[in-house]
Amino acid sequence: MSLSNDLHPDPSLHTRQHFASDNYAGMCANAARWFQIASTSGHEPAYGDDRWTQRVSDQLRELFQTDCDIYFVFNGTAANSLALASLCQSYHSVICTSVAHIETDECGGPEFFSNGSKLLVAEADSEAARRGKLTPDAVETLVTRRNDVHYPKPKVVSLTQSTELGTVYTVEEVRAIAAIAKRRHLKVHMDGARFANAVASLGCHPSDITWRAGVDVLCFGGTKNGLPVGEAVVFFDRTLSEDFAYRVKQAGQLASKMRFISAPWLGLLENDTWLHNAAHANAMAQRLHRQIVHLPGVRVLHPPESNAVFARLPPLAVTRLHAQGWRFYEFIAGGGCRFMCAWDTTPESVDAFATAIGVACADL
Amino acid sequence: MSLSNDLHPDPSLHTRQHFASDNYAGMCANAARWFQIASTSGHEPAYGDDRWTQRVSDQLRELFQTDCDIYFVFNGTAANSLALASLCQSYHSVICTSVAHIETDECGGPEFFSNGSKLLVAEADSEAARRGKLTPDAVETLVTRRNDVHYPKPKVVSLTQSTELGTVYTVEEVRAIAAIAKRRHLKVHMDGARFANAVASLGCHPSDITWRAGVDVLCFGGTKNGLPVGEAVVFFDRTLSEDFAYRVKQAGQLASKMRFISAPWLGLLENDTWLHNAAHANAMAQRLHRQIVHLPGVRVLHPPESNAVFARLPPLAVTRLHAQGWRFYEFIAGGGCRFMCAWDTTPESVDAFATAIGVACADL
Amino acid sequence: MSLSNDLHPDPSLHTRQHFASDNYAGMCANAARWFQIASTSGHEPAYGDDRWTQRVSDQLRELFQTDCDIYFVFNGTAANSLALASLCQSYHSVICTSVAHIETDECGGPEFFSNGSKLLVAEADSEAARRGKLTPDAVETLVTRRNDVHYPKPKVVSLTQSTELGTVYTVEEVRAIAAIAKRRHLKVHMDGARFANAVASLGCHPSDITWRAGVDVLCFGGTKNGLPVGEAVVFFDRTLSEDFAYRVKQAGQLASKMRFISAPWLGLLENDTWLHNAAHANAMAQRLHRQIVHLPGVRVLHPPESNAVFARLPPLAVTRLHAQGWRFYEFIAGGGCRFMCAWDTTPESVDAFATAIGVACADL
Amino acid sequence: MSLSNDLHPDPSLHTRQHFASDNYAGMCANAARWFQIASTSGHEPAYGDDRWTQRVSDQLRELFQTDCDIYFVFNGTAANSLALASLCQSYHSVICTSVAHIETDECGGPEFFSNGSKLLVAEADSEAARRGKLTPDAVETLVTRRNDVHYPKPKVVSLTQSTELGTVYTVEEVRAIAAIAKRRHLKVHMDGARFANAVASLGCHPSDITWRAGVDVLCFGGTKNGLPVGEAVVFFDRTLSEDFAYRVKQAGQLASKMRFISAPWLGLLENDTWLHNAAHANAMAQRLHRQIVHLPGVRVLHPPESNAVFARLPPLAVTRLHAQGWRFYEFIAGGGCRFMCAWDTTPESVDAFATAIGVACADL
Repeated sequence: MSLSNDLHPDPSLHTRQHFASDNYAGMCANAARWFQIASTSGHEPAYGDDRWTQRVSDQLRELFQTDCDIYFVFNGTAANSLALASLCQSYHSVICTSVAHIETDECGGPEFFSNGSKLLVAEADSEAARRGKLTPDAVETLVTRRNDVHYPKPKVVSLTQSTELGTVYTVEEVRAIAAIAKRRHLKVHMDGARFANAVASLGCHPSDITWRAGVDVLCFGGTKNGLPVGEAVVFFDRTLSEDFAYRVKQAGQLASKMRFISAPWLGLLENDTWLHNAAHANAMAQRLHRQIVHLPGVRVLHPPESNAVFARLPPLAVTRLHAQGWRFYEFIAGGGCRFMCAWDTTPESVDAFATAIGVACADL
Repeated sequence: MSLSNDLHPDPSLHTRQHFASDNYAGMCANAARWFQIASTSGHEPAYGDDRWTQRVSDQLRELFQTDCDIYFVFNGTAANSLALASLCQSYHSVICTSVAHIETDECGGPEFFSNGSKLLVAEADSEAARRGKLTPDAVETLVTRRNDVHYPKPKVVSLTQSTELGTVYTVEEVRAIAAIAKRRHLKVHMDGARFANAVASLGCHPSDITWRAGVDVLCFGGTKNGLPVGEAVVFFDRTLSEDFAYRVKQAGQLASKMRFISAPWLGLLENDTWLHNAAHANAMAQRLHRQIVHLPGVRVLHPPESNAVFARLPPLAVTRLHAQGWRFYEFIAGGGCRFMCAWDTTPESVDAFATAIGVACADL
Repeated sequence: MSLSNDLHPDPSLHTRQHFASDNYAGMCANAARWFQIASTSGHEPAYGDDRWTQRVSDQLRELFQTDCDIYFVFNGTAANSLALASLCQSYHSVICTSVAHIETDECGGPEFFSNGSKLLVAEADSEAARRGKLTPDAVETLVTRRNDVHYPKPKVVSLTQSTELGTVYTVEEVRAIAAIAKRRHLKVHMDGARFANAVASLGCHPSDITWRAGVDVLCFGGTKNGLPVGEAVVFFDRTLSEDFAYRVKQAGQLASKMRFISAPWLGLLENDTWLHNAAHANAMAQRLHRQIVHLPGVRVLHPPESNAVFARLPPLAVTRLHAQGWRFYEFIAGGGCRFMCAWDTTPESVDAFATAIGVACADL
Repeated sequence: MSLSNDLHPDPSLHTRQHFASDNYAGMCANAARWFQIASTSGHEPAYGDDRWTQRVSDQLRELFQTDCDIYFVFNGTAANSLALASLCQSYHSVICTSVAHIETDECGGPEFFSNGSKLLVAEADSEAARRGKLTPDAVETLVTRRNDVHYPKPKVVSLTQSTELGTVYTVEEVRAIAAIAKRRHLKVHMDGARFANAVASLGCHPSDITWRAGVDVLCFGGTKNGLPVGEAVVFFDRTLSEDFAYRVKQAGQLASKMRFISAPWLGLLENDTWLHNAAHANAMAQRLHRQIVHLPGVRVLHPPESNAVFARLPPLAVTRLHAQGWRFYEFIAGGGCRFMCAWDTTPESVDAFATAIGVACADL
């Protein structure tokens, strides 16, 4: 069953770990175990009317210590877009940062699912913005800028936790933004593709940076945390999820054999696997940071707070690393790099990559 | 790891096979094997840039003996809706039967993804309609009924193969409909949620009832055929798939860890597993049919041509069977039942169910 | 300024009145007078912030004896589609008759504006359906037929008053339908493209067949009643019109020089012009009916209750009449005709047309 | 028929001309004359099948010296949004400036009608951007910034002519942008809400800055130029307008009594009224500019090239002018004002306003 030599000339691509995306990682063992259990259990009712879906929903309610509504969808674009569509009409708008995934990497998904809602992007030129964060002031500025029918009415604030720049909103920061949101009659959406990494980083209870801080809807990412496929949409304000099951179905997000989407979550939740996976990825980012922060030519943008290191490298070093087969994203043209660690990134991989960076930068 | 006693009072629900939906079945062994291979291969590029996605796409092109474009999506609603959206603008319409899944069971998905395309439903009162089929005449009637801008312009004919009533279009029937479609400038879409069952039933080459017969786009179902999740959208007319990758992404249907969606297809294609799975399900429907067709009180609507038996039972017999924990759908109020066989339905399950039907009908 | 000889070979087309559509008629004198007043008043704030829009809104509130919310849009497709979109999400559905204008003549407008809401069409094979009407039973049947997420959830009942077949719902009939709608948590929308004709026919107060009977939103037609362009959307349940001004703007229905849309309504409302226009059109339909009901070969479908006569003529008579330049619609293939009278249809035109029908049918 | 005293406490509002919007002006005499002709001509086929619509379409084809396709819609939001929707699928994007009306003042109309197309806004920080213009470089930057499926694919460049900042693209500038558009497979849309003002300013033939320069679709504004309601969508590339009539109908933009929308255009086209109206408005802007450019405290942003003057005034002066009842928009917070002249703005109004500005600024 040798696959490693086909299609790609460089076999090391498949034996080496990369720092491009936490989506490069596979499925964690605990998730795999429950996938296996679900797959060998014979016939099971479809469309979520199965045992695992019910069980994992209950466990998530326990985890969040509140009677929230939970829906499973296939990926993050769908989770965010459907959540936002349930909060917005087509003539409403969503406040977010200029680096928000919903703005930069969902190909207009939020606009599509909402049939036209506009994203209002906060000024990129502030200290908070440079760290990928919204602030109460940024929200206030956008929500008060226009109040006529010729411009979409702000209806939602969307926070990414942890952020696309590897930082983490503190409990206080979420609370402050949610407070202004409430005052301005905005709902609060949290894009939690890497929610686990944020919780692990903060060391707080997951309820503390969600509903207790004023978040109405959380898109709780499973894929980057070790699942093969699937995210959970968690409505803390259950009045907002009315008929959401219909929305999920119509939008092509209701899995017929739902057990294969939901059962692996049991593996994530078992023994806090989700937190351990996230903490490990975070630790790997710290390890990488420690090893490269003092390298000549490397300028780290800010210390990592979750599972990514953002650094500026000499452009030639980037070229060299790519030539050696290392995969990572250039976030900003001219050497601004994102190094992403996954739940399965090994210390050895980090060390090898850090060494390669050191060598690539050595004479520049 | 005992799950069988929780949530459901009747443990037999989980030890017994049902005839409600082929979605009740799990994952077949061959698919599971490739899922496993993909899950243990370490890091792998995301979003379809992996080895398995490339390989299975090539194998599907070989299977169909043509250079078609292939996209993997999560479920049938998405496959059909996105395919139709790529063929239609919002002011166009799609011709289908009154029992078409796109009309009856996708919660307006086709209308949603196309932003308003209307489904034009053929007359239900004809012999073909009673067997779940369109005819050239039915298409002609709908396409010529209106030709003003006040009514959506017909643009697509959608065939379900095998049909929602368990019948199968012959090669000749597909060709005849496609011929009239071409003459009327309509594209031909095939909802192939159970395409494998149709091919197994007809014993033809898969190309013979698709592009060689005039089909432009096929939604090739994997889930009902033994996959955990996933369908393939196959564009035989490649001019129709321009920018379809963007459509898939925007619509929340691009799997980040695509390997988990695509790799199991290798299992289906290996050694014609897809055909064997389908042939088995078809055979189980034949077996069930043989055992119940002569039972007193049972009126079979038509002999099964794929993996479902449609029969009218005395209403009280339906009640009794449901009370015994048998799960199946009442297709038509008042005793019209659908008994669906899956790739894993055992002869023993069929026999037990047939016996139960006989007993339930015995004294009615 | 002779236009009558260009483009159309038959000058009589432009000197003769037709029975095709009440949209063939022009603007009534009273509307024209207010259009003129608005057009010669110098500068005026745009987008509805003008004197006439405010004034006519107040007058409409007086007319309906309730504090309703009023919006002016350009045409009936927009009025109905936007009203329905404000009542539905994309995964909801609207119950209507098979001859409802929203189903047959708005090119999928309701589906487009709502981003996918489906129209659920009542059985056409009932006495009420043959008269173009919904009944409580028809609503109940549709609303209870499905209750799973695989089918759009019924959310609205849409009545057309007067109906597309020239009949009029009595106050009791509206009340009965609205009662079942309330019980089933459906909103009630009234397509009132010919609302004036219904009120004139019933002799009731306009509030009696709207909000007092349970109607939530009325699309009050102005165009067919003597305006050049424009309909009013009247929300009796004001909680349903939240942010509707944004919806109107986004949908391209907010007139910049609103005064030209709103001011002519002052002419309609002045001295009950709207009712007189409608009563006249109704009377012309009665006059036409009287003259043709006993003609050999003519079979009137039902006595006119508003401004249209529906009759079956020998197909050859239809051909003859069209050849003579008479314009009217064939509603049903094979001689089923709709003869529509407008606010300006003269008795002489009716008499001439009735005579022509008699001659055309004479020897058949 | 005294209206001037109701609703507004300040009668001068209605006797004075304002500089807020060219939509404050009424209907020009020539348009009114043809409106009157159309309104008194008896019965006329509906939905554009009338004499005037045919005639004005032919005249527009003559005007542009090419066999273009022409559609009439109700307002600018609809014209732009429908034109863009015909060029884009939901996952495409439109390149425009940060001050483009489609970005700032159509409440998400383009996103709504296209079901999600994103507007890609050019950098605001350039000399061209400060004058409201795109440049070939700005287009190139946006079109090459991303080329992955995670971001909407650029498909259209949208130019506003004259621009939202009162400037005018030269023929050369349009050509240069269209050239890069063609190279990058983008279509060129021109928002011509004030197209007449641009043509009058440039003194060129209208074909020279449209199809001869590479424009595919023009939204030709009538309302601001003296019509009561209505814009023309002109497809120079007729392959792009396939089925556009259906799109117009579905979107609620097909006037039933179309003659009232189309006939007034005959007045605009007669004796070059459209150009005279525009030239007059432009001249009034020049007059205003001359009178205020040297006033102390007033800083004109750039010399007017069409019918608007943009100037920064001391904030207190703005407050004083508003207090005196003068209506104009603050374009930029803190005193950035737009003074818009209309086809009917009189020299006396300009002089009075200029005097008022001078007084308001006098002691600041």
